[in-house]
Amino acid sequence: MVRAIELAIDNVRRGHGGPFGAVVVKDGEAIAEGANSVTATNDPTAHAEIIAIRQACAKLSRFELRGCELYSSSEPCPMCLGAIYWARPTRIYFASTAADAARAGFDDSLIYNEIARPHSERKIPMIQMMSDEALEAFRAWERQPNKVPY
Amino acid sequence: MVRAIELAIDNVRRGHGGPFGAVVVKDGEAIAEGANSVTATNDPTAHAEIIAIRQACAKLSRFELRGCELYSSSEPCPMCLGAIYWARPTRIYFASTAADAARAGFDDSLIYNEIARPHSERKIPMIQMMSDEALEAFRAWERQPNKVPY
Repeated sequence: MVRAIELAIDNVRRGHGGPFGAVVVKDGEAIAEGANSVTATNDPTAHAEIIAIRQACAKLSRFELRGCELYSSSEPCPMCLGAIYWARPTRIYFASTAADAARAGFDDSLIYNEIARPHSERKIPMIQMMSDEALEAFRAWERQPNKVPY
Repeated sequence: MVRAIELAIDNVRRGHGGPFGAVVVKDGEAIAEGANSVTATNDPTAHAEIIAIRQACAKLSRFELRGCELYSSSEPCPMCLGAIYWARPTRIYFASTAADAARAGFDDSLIYNEIARPHSERKIPMIQMMSDEALEAFRAWERQPNKVPY
């Protein structure tokens, strides 16, 4: 966690992005790290946790992080939590809370609220179309051997 | 949406990944697209929507998608919804539902449920530590000029 917090502080001092850092640890060793790079790289998904998860998976040549721990300098946002649940690390350590982040201008409570709502009530309109045609993709999937649903 | 569904079907036929495709449209023109590449690239974040959002932002050289529409062959998962809310496209079109995807083995209801829970009750344990030390990152942020909180 010392390293995750250091990444967050250095990221701000370098003017690279928001005050967030993350580290993935396996068997007591840091195998990947990330710092918020949204504005520097024009990538809205470049949160510290996403970068660290992608880097750790690339290093391990697998798409899951079972047996790994994620250290984040701040409580993960819903996007990062979603990524965490797909990656399935064993445990998450975090330091500051979402409320601390919100006080600094990084308020993700809207996103938590929106995800919890039915899609018909969300602020970004979600419109369904071509639902029958889309089922063909699942039929193609069902016909595949060795399916790995990720 | 025709293209998003085609991407999903082609992705399965090529054995590249799950049956999901997405397209970002700006001013009536498709500017980015993606298909699920989690298993092929060992990247748990490589959902169709995430790939299309990252590609669209790179193309536009900005970290938001205001004025753009996202077409997804299937209802976005919580990770992708989080990314969508950070990227802020104007509108989302989707074809098959989360329930359709679940029937094909892609069940993200656990993730929706987990994100809605307090962190102390989540299945992946979340442990807070070094909360005081982490606030230094926000203090460094507050001292920065020209802050863009993303």
